Amino acid sequence: MIPVEEALDRVLAGLAPTPAETVGLSEAWGRVLAQPVLARLTQPPMDVSAMDGYALRAEDAATGARLRVIGASPAGHPFPGTVGPGEAVRIFTGGAVPPGADTILLQEDATAEGTHVLPTETPRAGRHIRRAGLDFAAGDTVLFPGRRLTARDTGLAAAANHPWLAVHRRPRIGILATGDEISLPGDPIPPGGIVSSNAHALAGLVKAAGGDPLVLPIAADDRDAIAAAAEAGRRCDMLVTTGGASVGEHDLVQAALGPQGFSLDFWKIAMRPGKPLIFGNLRGTPLLGLPGNPVSALVCAVLFLIPAIRRLSGLPSGPVETRPALLGRDMPANDRRQDYVRGELTRDSAGQPVATPFPAQDSSMLRLLAQAGCLIIRPPHAPAAPAGSIVQVVELSSLGV
Amino acid sequence: MIPVEEALDRVLAGLAPTPAETVGLSEAWGRVLAQPVLARLTQPPMDVSAMDGYALRAEDAATGARLRVIGASPAGHPFPGTVGPGEAVRIFTGGAVPPGADTILLQEDATAEGTHVLPTETPRAGRHIRRAGLDFAAGDTVLFPGRRLTARDTGLAAAANHPWLAVHRRPRIGILATGDEISLPGDPIPPGGIVSSNAHALAGLVKAAGGDPLVLPIAADDRDAIAAAAEAGRRCDMLVTTGGASVGEHDLVQAALGPQGFSLDFWKIAMRPGKPLIFGNLRGTPLLGLPGNPVSALVCAVLFLIPAIRRLSGLPSGPVETRPALLGRDMPANDRRQDYVRGELTRDSAGQPVATPFPAQDSSMLRLLAQAGCLIIRPPHAPAAPAGSIVQVVELSSLGV
Repeated sequence: MIPVEEALDRVLAGLAPTPAETVGLSEAWGRVLAQPVLARLTQPPMDVSAMDGYALRAEDAATGARLRVIGASPAGHPFPGTVGPGEAVRIFTGGAVPPGADTILLQEDATAEGTHVLPTETPRAGRHIRRAGLDFAAGDTVLFPGRRLTARDTGLAAAANHPWLAVHRRPRIGILATGDEISLPGDPIPPGGIVSSNAHALAGLVKAAGGDPLVLPIAADDRDAIAAAAEAGRRCDMLVTTGGASVGEHDLVQAALGPQGFSLDFWKIAMRPGKPLIFGNLRGTPLLGLPGNPVSALVCAVLFLIPAIRRLSGLPSGPVETRPALLGRDMPANDRRQDYVRGELTRDSAGQPVATPFPAQDSSMLRLLAQAGCLIIRPPHAPAAPAGSIVQVVELSSLGV
Repeated sequence: MIPVEEALDRVLAGLAPTPAETVGLSEAWGRVLAQPVLARLTQPPMDVSAMDGYALRAEDAATGARLRVIGASPAGHPFPGTVGPGEAVRIFTGGAVPPGADTILLQEDATAEGTHVLPTETPRAGRHIRRAGLDFAAGDTVLFPGRRLTARDTGLAAAANHPWLAVHRRPRIGILATGDEISLPGDPIPPGGIVSSNAHALAGLVKAAGGDPLVLPIAADDRDAIAAAAEAGRRCDMLVTTGGASVGEHDLVQAALGPQGFSLDFWKIAMRPGKPLIFGNLRGTPLLGLPGNPVSALVCAVLFLIPAIRRLSGLPSGPVETRPALLGRDMPANDRRQDYVRGELTRDSAGQPVATPFPAQDSSMLRLLAQAGCLIIRPPHAPAAPAGSIVQVVELSSLGV
């Protein structure tokens, strides 16, 4: 049995980011940037007013002065002339500061009188002026590759005058559920059979992680069927199998795919839930073989498939994020396997997260898994932990899982 | 000026969830459930084995016994007979426990000898058996309305045998940027003009919150143009305007829409950044008027538009989520406006979040906003806060914003 960290390193080492595609700015939200975004202009393009008021020369704005208003400079309509001594230009937020003016008199610090304005305060030179390039200058790199684009980022790319962006292609993840006993929802269920749930849960997880799921038809527990289905998934960036528990799943997948050129990097991971996972390569396509139990499959997918999809997407490599929480109940000492215990995640009166393990941890209980707020991580050989101890947790719903 | 909380209450009070639509299970991830999901079957459907081993009568499994293996019960292929005294059935995880058997002998606690099996341990009755209905029983409500469906939820709905789900229609949010000075990225820029960024950022925010953005063409600072554009957005579930700063934005929108039947619920909110916002109703369509400055527009959208979209989506009503963080730097006392200060969000060595305000807070600085990890909330009249104090923050990237 190898530790979770080593297993993840081995998965990630076998993966490379997808190549770039060009998408319109309106499709770029949530995508991972593949090339830097350099500003194509300077923002603001010239000195502009930060407030509504009057552009004038600071030396003219003494209390008691009376300045002639010679025009206006709203945003988008620069005043075409120059501000001379004793003159002012009505200006609005974002409007260009006209040549000659060196400060902005706020409108609440002025009294308008017909074609003139009377300052009631004296602004110092430079007040309320946003200098050209305050936000960015032409040529500045405003966004760097390897970043999942937020709403703000798409706004920034727009402001930098980019109608198109180069982003990594969404990784296409083939999902192959195997098993004689499973049917699709709504389809006839064979005697003793159950409805397939893992493929649909995994497809949601793939979307949540920024991938593009391809759900393959269910394969029977049969070497030829598995081999044919896996072949159909070979053009994916990664193929994920699940189940096949009826006849010893790992042997079956291995037996079916070995003759197809599958190079196996098999291991048992020192974790719970999670039986032995398969990771390997089917003639160039990385393959991750998950257990068939819903809880084991999902927990393993959170720990290995989400980081794999992120890596394929061009995001920085690494484990799924954890955060500290206070333990809501005593927990016993752990054995040599890293434990991922399903629990509730609440907040105490100070707003600190509190993680409380569920009493039942059976790996077939999908309803309980759906109700879990977090996975509480118990490292190998962790000593007994009293309520109130700090533990690390994986928050599930913030991952979209 | 009214407090942020009261303003939000007024926005949410004017909104109702969208009606339901039917979507296939494979499209349901991330959608908000509109009707309860009742299990259409019992899971597991019968008593099944939790392990690989032998199904037998506990009283027969004494060390030294020798039991005849009369068949097998893999998952999906129930053994058709009954286990009698001195008999055992080979069984696999998920396989039906045959009538007559009352326990599972683990395969590692048994020695197979041709057609017989010799127990090396004695299991007690009921061991390693998952009872019918352990996960859920037919008729149980496994998912409740008003929940954004996670990957686990879609798996659970599948297991409960639902190929279709009723979810709330994604709220369609019309986005209308106004202003003579703005152009779309890549289009010619007028003299003194800038490239429109708010509409694209807001469209990303709408997607992040689960809505469906409809970006309307830019309207000039002209009553007729704004009225026509707003009319085009009236079939949306909400219309959001931004900008029009050049001639006093709120007057202009009000002047343009008043004759169109706009009923205005105008206010100034005691917050910073954020100029007066408009909220009202254009003959049945709720309208939210955001300021034109990118930072003000985005911060106001986080505080008002995200909760509005959630409410329209059928999610529980309420403010955007905040979390505690340690302040990374001293902050001065606050005035009467609630302040949303842009800052970095890092972690200290114990993993606790640390929020450090940026020195510059100008509301035109989109690049700095894109780099912010959080908004640090400073309530009205908050006293000076030294580094290390606990503050509440809005985490931006976890919102997809």
